[in-house]
Amino acid sequence: MTTLVGCIGGGQLGRMLALAGAPLDVRLRFLDPASDACAGEVGELIVGAYDDPACLARLADGAAAVTYEFENVPVEAAHSVGAVPDARALELGQDRLVEKELFRGLGIGTAPFGSLQSVGVPALVKSRRLGYDGKGQRLVEAQERIGEDELAEGVVPFERELSIVAVRRSSGDTAFYPLAENEHRGGILALSRAPAADAPQRAAEAIASRLLDELEYVGVLAVELFEVGGELLANEFAPRVHNTGHWTIDGAATSQFENHLRAILGLPLGSTAAHGASVLVNLVGTLPPLEGLLALPGAHVHLYGKEPRPGRKLGHVTLVDATDDVVSTAIRLASAAWVV
Amino acid sequence: MTTLVGCIGGGQLGRMLALAGAPLDVRLRFLDPASDACAGEVGELIVGAYDDPACLARLADGAAAVTYEFENVPVEAAHSVGAVPDARALELGQDRLVEKELFRGLGIGTAPFGSLQSVGVPALVKSRRLGYDGKGQRLVEAQERIGEDELAEGVVPFERELSIVAVRRSSGDTAFYPLAENEHRGGILALSRAPAADAPQRAAEAIASRLLDELEYVGVLAVELFEVGGELLANEFAPRVHNTGHWTIDGAATSQFENHLRAILGLPLGSTAAHGASVLVNLVGTLPPLEGLLALPGAHVHLYGKEPRPGRKLGHVTLVDATDDVVSTAIRLASAAWVV
Repeated sequence: MTTLVGCIGGGQLGRMLALAGAPLDVRLRFLDPASDACAGEVGELIVGAYDDPACLARLADGAAAVTYEFENVPVEAAHSVGAVPDARALELGQDRLVEKELFRGLGIGTAPFGSLQSVGVPALVKSRRLGYDGKGQRLVEAQERIGEDELAEGVVPFERELSIVAVRRSSGDTAFYPLAENEHRGGILALSRAPAADAPQRAAEAIASRLLDELEYVGVLAVELFEVGGELLANEFAPRVHNTGHWTIDGAATSQFENHLRAILGLPLGSTAAHGASVLVNLVGTLPPLEGLLALPGAHVHLYGKEPRPGRKLGHVTLVDATDDVVSTAIRLASAAWVV
Repeated sequence: MTTLVGCIGGGQLGRMLALAGAPLDVRLRFLDPASDACAGEVGELIVGAYDDPACLARLADGAAAVTYEFENVPVEAAHSVGAVPDARALELGQDRLVEKELFRGLGIGTAPFGSLQSVGVPALVKSRRLGYDGKGQRLVEAQERIGEDELAEGVVPFERELSIVAVRRSSGDTAFYPLAENEHRGGILALSRAPAADAPQRAAEAIASRLLDELEYVGVLAVELFEVGGELLANEFAPRVHNTGHWTIDGAATSQFENHLRAILGLPLGSTAAHGASVLVNLVGTLPPLEGLLALPGAHVHLYGKEPRPGRKLGHVTLVDATDDVVSTAIRLASAAWVV
């Protein structure tokens, strides 16, 4: 019996959810305002506004669960269809100030945050809402008046950025993927290496656990972390499958996409063990020639079926147990086509 | 740019081809007489006879390549759309006598075959055409008159059945997966273990190479082999992706499905290396409870979205690097639901 899952948003994360669902006889139905939303190629697509009640009703009709694939889904829309993860996770994550206060309340370290006066300069001033991929951020070097819709954060001299992808069922069962170490370029994720070398896995799991339990969370959640002098500071969380977890499709026993579906459908979680060292390379703006990437031993190419556009994530390549030379070549090919 | 591939037949092999194609931005379009053909859930489906010229024209319209997913495709239909692999592979494989003569002509060992008189009794008498999953076969213990559409084969006391899945590009590049060791039940594949222990990999590759080169083959081809006293005898070949290669989705660097698409599209072949020991367990007739299978560490569940029916392959489970206990449990669960 085919199981239907509704998903608010029909981008590449939705597409990869659908591809993970097919082998479990789970079909995805998407709601997206774009008629060419790339998940529409692998599932049913309802074209409409995220908060259109009639569209939401169609999305949920006959669905065993409704989920979402981006964090700026209107909270009320998610709530109206009883989305999993719960709309509260969206709500808390959509305001950077509320998000940081949640971390603080749970005893999770963060960079200093608050008013620009309290944080001091230099500081990063970020819009509290709707920022992503480094958008809505600026570095401020002298005191100024910032808006109520902005938040100042201390500039932390971190050694590296890490992220942890976790998954939890309503039963409380929780599983964690190995930490990924991430590099950005122009504010966009460029590279992710997993498992990260010498990583503070247990400390990261403790942070994610506190969040998951506080939110009584169901599904996949990612937490972005800074490593500073051996300590972990939480930067933000995403209540969804995450770009730094894409390596799990090829490099882990169960992908983050399959585990998200298992979790929201109340099925047993799959093993999160890595079966090698993975490097994820994002393809942004334009695509490099496919032949060159496919010829690399250990390379797994994932294209999203999206039109090229500066700054747009068009695909990724995961290199599993590849040699340093192969990884370098993949990075070179991807970088040459990178347009932000 | 999305690449379109046409496929004659829309069963589970087509479905898995489509799922392998999606990450490469390759979409599948299927031709199948059944309106509920299970590949139709993951690609476009043209409902019609395999040899309907108008349907074949629609199938090929705009397609970069047309392939097929079962060996009883009408040869003329495959020929009319310039199918890859070439229709000649189909033609030679569709008649057991011609197939065995091809093996013999290439110096590939087989069980004795020919008239019942020349083979002697006991013998297996098989219909020359349209047999599969053990259908159209009978054991004959005394001389009798057999039909012109039948072939007698000597009963070979083989130690085990092996199979090799190979892939070749038009450039001549060829790659081989590790041999699988297979067990049947009621004439239907029940279990496949890969890589097979102590397997004559090089001898099997030599057999497959001779076939691939003789046919100037493009795509994935499987050869079923008997191991008899350290020698390999060829039983039959299939000019398509093969059930004994399904483990490659989860247990190899590149799946047979992806490599078939790469080959027919003229793209570089991917690594065929196994990343662990895989056991494939077929689900036939009815499905066991999904929860039990998903709870097994290392289990990858693949359902085909087909209605239960005795003798019908409804899905498979691949266990990668699983413990003996886990493998036993999976076999027990699958066997309990097995209906032929």
